[in-house]
Amino acid sequence: MIAITSHNTTDERIAEIVHWIEKHGVSAHVSKGEDRTVIGIIGKADPVMAEQLRQMSGISEVIKISKSYKLASREFHPADTVISIKGVEIGGQDLVVMGGPCAVESPEQIDEIARLVKAAGGQVLRGGAFKPRTGPYSFQGVGVEGLEMMAEAGRKHGLLTITEVMTPEYVDICAEHADILQVGTRNMQNFDLLRKLGTIQTPVLLKRGFSATYDEFLNAAEYILAGGNPNVMLCERGIRTFETYTRNTLDLAAIPVLKQLSHLPIISDPSHGTGRRELVEPMCKASVAAGADGLIVEMHTDPDNSMTGDGVQSLFPDQFANLLLDLEKLAPLCGKTFSTKKEPVLAGSWKK
Amino acid sequence: MIAITSHNTTDERIAEIVHWIEKHGVSAHVSKGEDRTVIGIIGKADPVMAEQLRQMSGISEVIKISKSYKLASREFHPADTVISIKGVEIGGQDLVVMGGPCAVESPEQIDEIARLVKAAGGQVLRGGAFKPRTGPYSFQGVGVEGLEMMAEAGRKHGLLTITEVMTPEYVDICAEHADILQVGTRNMQNFDLLRKLGTIQTPVLLKRGFSATYDEFLNAAEYILAGGNPNVMLCERGIRTFETYTRNTLDLAAIPVLKQLSHLPIISDPSHGTGRRELVEPMCKASVAAGADGLIVEMHTDPDNSMTGDGVQSLFPDQFANLLLDLEKLAPLCGKTFSTKKEPVLAGSWKK
Amino acid sequence: MIAITSHNTTDERIAEIVHWIEKHGVSAHVSKGEDRTVIGIIGKADPVMAEQLRQMSGISEVIKISKSYKLASREFHPADTVISIKGVEIGGQDLVVMGGPCAVESPEQIDEIARLVKAAGGQVLRGGAFKPRTGPYSFQGVGVEGLEMMAEAGRKHGLLTITEVMTPEYVDICAEHADILQVGTRNMQNFDLLRKLGTIQTPVLLKRGFSATYDEFLNAAEYILAGGNPNVMLCERGIRTFETYTRNTLDLAAIPVLKQLSHLPIISDPSHGTGRRELVEPMCKASVAAGADGLIVEMHTDPDNSMTGDGVQSLFPDQFANLLLDLEKLAPLCGKTFSTKKEPVLAGSWKK
Amino acid sequence: MIAITSHNTTDERIAEIVHWIEKHGVSAHVSKGEDRTVIGIIGKADPVMAEQLRQMSGISEVIKISKSYKLASREFHPADTVISIKGVEIGGQDLVVMGGPCAVESPEQIDEIARLVKAAGGQVLRGGAFKPRTGPYSFQGVGVEGLEMMAEAGRKHGLLTITEVMTPEYVDICAEHADILQVGTRNMQNFDLLRKLGTIQTPVLLKRGFSATYDEFLNAAEYILAGGNPNVMLCERGIRTFETYTRNTLDLAAIPVLKQLSHLPIISDPSHGTGRRELVEPMCKASVAAGADGLIVEMHTDPDNSMTGDGVQSLFPDQFANLLLDLEKLAPLCGKTFSTKKEPVLAGSWKK
Repeated sequence: MIAITSHNTTDERIAEIVHWIEKHGVSAHVSKGEDRTVIGIIGKADPVMAEQLRQMSGISEVIKISKSYKLASREFHPADTVISIKGVEIGGQDLVVMGGPCAVESPEQIDEIARLVKAAGGQVLRGGAFKPRTGPYSFQGVGVEGLEMMAEAGRKHGLLTITEVMTPEYVDICAEHADILQVGTRNMQNFDLLRKLGTIQTPVLLKRGFSATYDEFLNAAEYILAGGNPNVMLCERGIRTFETYTRNTLDLAAIPVLKQLSHLPIISDPSHGTGRRELVEPMCKASVAAGADGLIVEMHTDPDNSMTGDGVQSLFPDQFANLLLDLEKLAPLCGKTFSTKKEPVLAGSWKK
Repeated sequence: MIAITSHNTTDERIAEIVHWIEKHGVSAHVSKGEDRTVIGIIGKADPVMAEQLRQMSGISEVIKISKSYKLASREFHPADTVISIKGVEIGGQDLVVMGGPCAVESPEQIDEIARLVKAAGGQVLRGGAFKPRTGPYSFQGVGVEGLEMMAEAGRKHGLLTITEVMTPEYVDICAEHADILQVGTRNMQNFDLLRKLGTIQTPVLLKRGFSATYDEFLNAAEYILAGGNPNVMLCERGIRTFETYTRNTLDLAAIPVLKQLSHLPIISDPSHGTGRRELVEPMCKASVAAGADGLIVEMHTDPDNSMTGDGVQSLFPDQFANLLLDLEKLAPLCGKTFSTKKEPVLAGSWKK
Repeated sequence: MIAITSHNTTDERIAEIVHWIEKHGVSAHVSKGEDRTVIGIIGKADPVMAEQLRQMSGISEVIKISKSYKLASREFHPADTVISIKGVEIGGQDLVVMGGPCAVESPEQIDEIARLVKAAGGQVLRGGAFKPRTGPYSFQGVGVEGLEMMAEAGRKHGLLTITEVMTPEYVDICAEHADILQVGTRNMQNFDLLRKLGTIQTPVLLKRGFSATYDEFLNAAEYILAGGNPNVMLCERGIRTFETYTRNTLDLAAIPVLKQLSHLPIISDPSHGTGRRELVEPMCKASVAAGADGLIVEMHTDPDNSMTGDGVQSLFPDQFANLLLDLEKLAPLCGKTFSTKKEPVLAGSWKK
Repeated sequence: MIAITSHNTTDERIAEIVHWIEKHGVSAHVSKGEDRTVIGIIGKADPVMAEQLRQMSGISEVIKISKSYKLASREFHPADTVISIKGVEIGGQDLVVMGGPCAVESPEQIDEIARLVKAAGGQVLRGGAFKPRTGPYSFQGVGVEGLEMMAEAGRKHGLLTITEVMTPEYVDICAEHADILQVGTRNMQNFDLLRKLGTIQTPVLLKRGFSATYDEFLNAAEYILAGGNPNVMLCERGIRTFETYTRNTLDLAAIPVLKQLSHLPIISDPSHGTGRRELVEPMCKASVAAGADGLIVEMHTDPDNSMTGDGVQSLFPDQFANLLLDLEKLAPLCGKTFSTKKEPVLAGSWKK
């Protein structure tokens, strides 16, 4: 940690600050510059100390050199984390594709979509039973029954399942039914939810808050890891910028950055990251080229009539299958493996 | 609601879309333009319908003309909402000043600060018992005991109290001890928390999410109002932008905008909005000049040693008192009244 | 300047870096931390050196402690700059109000508006002869004739004039006709234009780029100052953020921040900063409360028919006059003086 | 074009507005909604008309349905533009790679780098003779001599050359020496420069302003096209967001979006888009996967001592060559062709 003094800080004040620092059991190295002085703090400093120093008179800036997260950092844990669930490995050699509708609507809908995800080569079925919605009058999901419909479809077609959990009290029931729990972008800093997820072992896909920095994102992961659950994967899903043509700006540089700062697997979500169907395919390919460990993609058999209105970003089943055929060729050039049955899904070959 | 077709949409497709719209019990007016067609939807449209239309092939854009929130809108409720609590009116003639530390630390600390808030002319004591923190290793607040310390200090000095509630399960106990419950910026879209707050009558100060649009902010208020709690005040506390010199960018235009769109009282929070002590006083004055109904300001007797590190944005008690003396003169020019005892608080006249 | 090493930098590499630094005639103080080393560079470092150090292997970060601008900084020039033009002082005791249309349209239009600006108490007439426009097919201004019309109106009514200059080759002719030259937001980093403005003595109002940091803004001012023209005023005119309800987000904290970092006068532009007529009055008051030295406000006698389409943010002449009556009362509470003839301008008392 | 009335607009006012519209030679279709009225304007409307309507009382919003740019749009020009320069086609089958230093420093430097670009398989040599710099005291480029050094190196090694032009008066001399002229991000809305570039036929690479929307970007291209120069290529180089870990946020969705909206070739610039050497390779691959027609990449033989400080984002020659070997495999999966000599450049095999 380094503290930099203000322009006019007197030698007396510097001495007082140094005295205050040393009282806390760490040592201070003073380097006088032309018009400011730099105080290096050496030793294991309490994180509160940085915050206190920053607000002292005579100090203009405090720079932390050690990161505020530890368990999530690659420095602490150099090897890639690989999360193994019923034979599927996330963060390892295989590219993992998660596909499905924004919301579970009926047993028939989710069964047919599960069939199509499997046929195309996907490994995980996504679907929301509880939906976070901007306004109170929008469709809020079908609830617990949706969890059961999805679990059943996953079992039948041999797919893992992932679903969003929005509040600590639903963590247990969601974990009973789904293989992976998703924390949505609006809940990335719902600290009680993160703490609760730290107490179980079910893998968690943590979505980046749409205005979260990398540092805040990794600190949110740290909440879960620090609680005792090591099975966290990070998900880039677009950030909010001034550009409104796309729903969000998918920040693909996040993939190599997070790979460098952390050992956790990284999944990319081009559906929410762009909000436009025609951009999903190129941004899926770009995500894999940037080094993603997996993709989460919205697919729907009847997007015109989806209940959440997210159909606008959902692929049709044949588009989804064609994308996966392309990924099969692309993956080996990007250090990954991925295999399909090499058969396209024909347009119109599904039940709406 | 208006739907605009794509460049190449055929007449057949337009006829299908019109048919689909009319099936839903509303009528469609078609205006053909040079290269696009505009379909006006007349009647009480289901909100899901806009979302479904947007994702239909042949449609390039859907524009909602009615707002998605209703109870929060000034169109629905033209008169200003005035929230009356134990004789203090928020949103009416009086300017309301809320002051206090970021976190309650001890009975002595909060008692001394309450004394100073009252002496300066403030009406509400702020203080956090539960603190949302970016990282899991930072100080998380003293918890329920803090609620009791603050309630006691408020009672003794004749101040209302406001404190943050972070999770639905703590709403009842916080409401027992505090006069106003605060929803923090990271929880603006914690929908379960908002729903729970809709079931009680305790006034709620809802902070704008640091990346929330006005529309999302008012939709979040709508969750509480729709649940049955009409006592909501809005709080502008700065948004996240590319500028990092200040902690956030305090968006003061939000004050007249929200006054125009909504009838709810607006409070400004320059402490979090700027993150720098020296900016709090000018931005408090600017907030009042822009039409704020109140201010929430961090003040601490010993900011160098505050436990959260937010001391850097806390006023000293004498600065706080001087600010309120200035506001007393400024308020009448801005359509408000505010009165102090007209005595400054002397530097050093308080217990640390 | 401080350089911080990477996690794994070896002692040999540190020694090489220190050697490289010392070769450049400055000295290096090394403080070894737990897992990184801090190298303080003491002495007059060449600015290129920071840039070179940043890219060396073994270095993770370089922090400049001295600012990159000097003439614009308050540290270098502690007293406020007051720019005196024909008896009007900008940056001193007086609040300065600049009013007028977005674009000069005809001699009659600018004459009538000048009369109304003067009647209301304004000191400066604004108006554009050359207009920067997003698209090539929009109205681009009336050109040099507009300069003459405006100069004539200013002379006749006893007002200073300000107009935008867009390209170095027009600086001389604009300076012949106008008292103050404005650099628009899109040209804040048009370095050739800034350099040219440094070669004359005409005062310059430099608008903040809509995505410029404070540091970039002051560096742009430094270009003009370094060229030899000390008469620069800064103008906050809103930044681009995710919020699109307002045209820009007027960053009023910029006013006290820039006052602290720099000695140059600060003018606020709520017309462009909000893009909505009904927000101009509250944001003008808020700007003065935040400490602005002046305001630049769009006013038009016939906004429905303005040629640029900026009428939507222009005040009517009676609104402008009422605003100035309010500012007369507000200014003394904010350390400024301002006086009008104390007579409102009646609605409809002007020629369209 | 559609105009939407305010909540309270009376029928009389609507009739006046309709009358005003029809006076301008276009027709108005009125659709009355529940609480607002939509007026569709049918016919060839003058662009100023939208701006005037927007500011009329009684109107709350005006939505343009036709785009404000025309020559740049794919609707107007459905086939891809292919720019052919001395046998290299940009925007066609071939992936085009532009490589070189941020700034030309000496004849030896640029000659050696040109040799390495050619050896690796690149087609274009980049290098700056005039450098736009945030502060006036930074290195500003070597000027006209740099143009000559670069032209000579290009000729000798059989490469096209690209260089930045910053001001209209230098357009002719830059065009004499370079094959492609680059407009930098800060000059995207330097309209005089764009107009001047419209008068020549030399191809222009137009960089997106770091805060420009797609619409503004295409309008800037329209300035050049409307002047008569059809040879424009667009360059995504990162936008400014709240995330500061990377220098900018490279917006790769811009590639498929711009391909859809426009027929112009798209080049990606991961060097400036990320500002970090280790991110350049993954983001180059991701750009190609997203559909880019080409890449512009900084490469330097001695980045530790580059004169601009942009070495931190420059690849070493061996990294550059390895990247191009990878692109050769990737391109065919992304609808492009690219070929190298299939030989790596060995580390250290170049002159510093």
